[in-house]
Amino acid sequence: MSVEIVAFGNEVLQGLTVNTNASFLSDALRKRGYQVARHTVLPDETAAIEEGLKDAWERSSLVITTGGLGPTLDDLTESVLKRIFTKAPLLLKNNLGSAPGLAFTEKGKTLIALPGVPREMEEMFLLEAFPYIEKMLPLKEKLFMEELHFAHLPEASIDRFLTSQKREGIEIGIYPSLGILHVTFTVFAKTKEEAHKIIAPLKKKTASEFSRHMFEAESGKIEEAVHQDFIAKKKTVAFAESCTGGLLAKRLTSLPGASNYFLGSFVCYADALKHKILHVSPSISSVSKKAVEEMAEGVFQITSADYALAVSGVAGPTGEKPVGTIYAALGKRGGPIFSGKFQAKGRNREGILEYASSFCLFSLWKYLTSEQEPLFS
Amino acid sequence: MSVEIVAFGNEVLQGLTVNTNASFLSDALRKRGYQVARHTVLPDETAAIEEGLKDAWERSSLVITTGGLGPTLDDLTESVLKRIFTKAPLLLKNNLGSAPGLAFTEKGKTLIALPGVPREMEEMFLLEAFPYIEKMLPLKEKLFMEELHFAHLPEASIDRFLTSQKREGIEIGIYPSLGILHVTFTVFAKTKEEAHKIIAPLKKKTASEFSRHMFEAESGKIEEAVHQDFIAKKKTVAFAESCTGGLLAKRLTSLPGASNYFLGSFVCYADALKHKILHVSPSISSVSKKAVEEMAEGVFQITSADYALAVSGVAGPTGEKPVGTIYAALGKRGGPIFSGKFQAKGRNREGILEYASSFCLFSLWKYLTSEQEPLFS
Repeated sequence: MSVEIVAFGNEVLQGLTVNTNASFLSDALRKRGYQVARHTVLPDETAAIEEGLKDAWERSSLVITTGGLGPTLDDLTESVLKRIFTKAPLLLKNNLGSAPGLAFTEKGKTLIALPGVPREMEEMFLLEAFPYIEKMLPLKEKLFMEELHFAHLPEASIDRFLTSQKREGIEIGIYPSLGILHVTFTVFAKTKEEAHKIIAPLKKKTASEFSRHMFEAESGKIEEAVHQDFIAKKKTVAFAESCTGGLLAKRLTSLPGASNYFLGSFVCYADALKHKILHVSPSISSVSKKAVEEMAEGVFQITSADYALAVSGVAGPTGEKPVGTIYAALGKRGGPIFSGKFQAKGRNREGILEYASSFCLFSLWKYLTSEQEPLFS
Repeated sequence: MSVEIVAFGNEVLQGLTVNTNASFLSDALRKRGYQVARHTVLPDETAAIEEGLKDAWERSSLVITTGGLGPTLDDLTESVLKRIFTKAPLLLKNNLGSAPGLAFTEKGKTLIALPGVPREMEEMFLLEAFPYIEKMLPLKEKLFMEELHFAHLPEASIDRFLTSQKREGIEIGIYPSLGILHVTFTVFAKTKEEAHKIIAPLKKKTASEFSRHMFEAESGKIEEAVHQDFIAKKKTVAFAESCTGGLLAKRLTSLPGASNYFLGSFVCYADALKHKILHVSPSISSVSKKAVEEMAEGVFQITSADYALAVSGVAGPTGEKPVGTIYAALGKRGGPIFSGKFQAKGRNREGILEYASSFCLFSLWKYLTSEQEPLFS
């Protein structure tokens, strides 16, 4: 079964946007057992669309297209598709827009044309297109992926470990991204249970080897782990942020229901606010172990939070201390405040801030769920 | 001149990451006058790479590849490329990693193989590959794009206007994205000046028609506009955030030098903090015109900021008021505080927050630079 995704979109070819439609479809197909073998992006022009579609149709058993020429898309897609196919297509209902999708099946192959607007495309794929695909092109063996998620773990250590543990039939992927690292285990199997049986021993061994760095979240996002467990444990948290500049707060509040446990964040970028609001001593450097400790204490003083987290550091591109030097402090009301320094790695300011915030959220989660002392302390 | 970009990467085909390398190259090529006609993503397998490369080489005058199989990439890419080309390649220096890039030119066509790690790829493209491309494949006419940026402007209004203004030889693109809308004017011309002469009348007319919604920033990001003009005008700002949950602060602090004007943000998610820190009256609804006014006043009281901005609203997915209802207040120290309500449009919580924060930052910028009263008031 060879699957490919073809997008029509000048804005992607001009570098103005990324092809998130292809990501959505690849992810959704993989989770349903189908492996995607190719993405193509073509310009909004009849000749290019026709050539690209014919090639794709020749190569693959399943072709899914997205997007086109705005209001004239359907006419164009339809006219091109009519030159390729002899039979009339099945129409796929569009609940959120006007243009229907199209589904063609000939010679045991299927082509699906979806709209380009992401929410229309996504809903149509899930409700209309995928059930059709599953009926027309059922799989004997499906792709199954299981994942593990880690924070602040060097790629080299896990790479060395996994290379020594290679198993026949399991494809391993390591995807590091700004302080977070995902490991994927992929197999082909008839059922989820069969796949899990193949993956489980290696997955368990990997999890146990790096347990101090591991977290659990279906999305692979550390903020989701924090969010779910604060809600489950009925505890509250507040932050004091300097270098992260609101990013810690933003990551939690991007999830619905954050008001259940997140009280707020004091983004004290100017030192004067650290002194006035958080009562940090004016005599100490604001990028220091002592400063973050006082910031965390300040959070306990002015809020009712059960947990407090404070961060200050050098995000770059320049600073008095080396770029990426981050101080953090973390504690539970009435308990000790742990504090220390770590190095956030990133290719630029945004990367460093993402790394720093991920590692801080991870430390908070570990302390909340297992009382593990932060790795930075 | 037909240009295409080919990426090797299972993680993109699995939907785990997006193809940002292709975006970078498309954008960089467009800015240098080259139009990209196709993106392809192929799996990390010899047969697929060979087939994909041969097709691309046949179709296009310039093929740029990125990524591959990690440590074994070079062997594989090289062995595939050796079956396609007869001459030895030129090696492109890698300043940030070990594997060099490769450049082949035969029959007036060029193929460039770049590494997959973004920072290595980007530096190699800019320093090594592009100068080579420009020498081997000079353009007679280049692509030139000029842009205008707007906030809180319905796509339909600008679409209607631009449709009525169509000019021969100018390609117009409209790209709305969560409260921000970019309009692009693209022409082929010999020089930048010639291109500007063609574009200028229509661009000027469009700018003047929608001037109340327009902002200026090279990156097209509203936070860049705010950032530059606060620095230029030597003024300071602080925020009080409820629903945006730190996003306003995060957007400014993602830019280096924000500490020159950004004092901080009081992310008061819990109502208790709004009362205690910002002195909002406990008797009023926290999602109201009065509440954001008091939040802005609170910012003036507890900071030395010249400008204050406060936001509170319903980000969803549920709430007591309709999802997307946002109240904002904005003022200058000693001046009036403008406040009002607007509807943030987005397909989900993150979209609504992005929209709300963009419109608030835009309103702040307009008030700072031209004393324009906020459109929400």
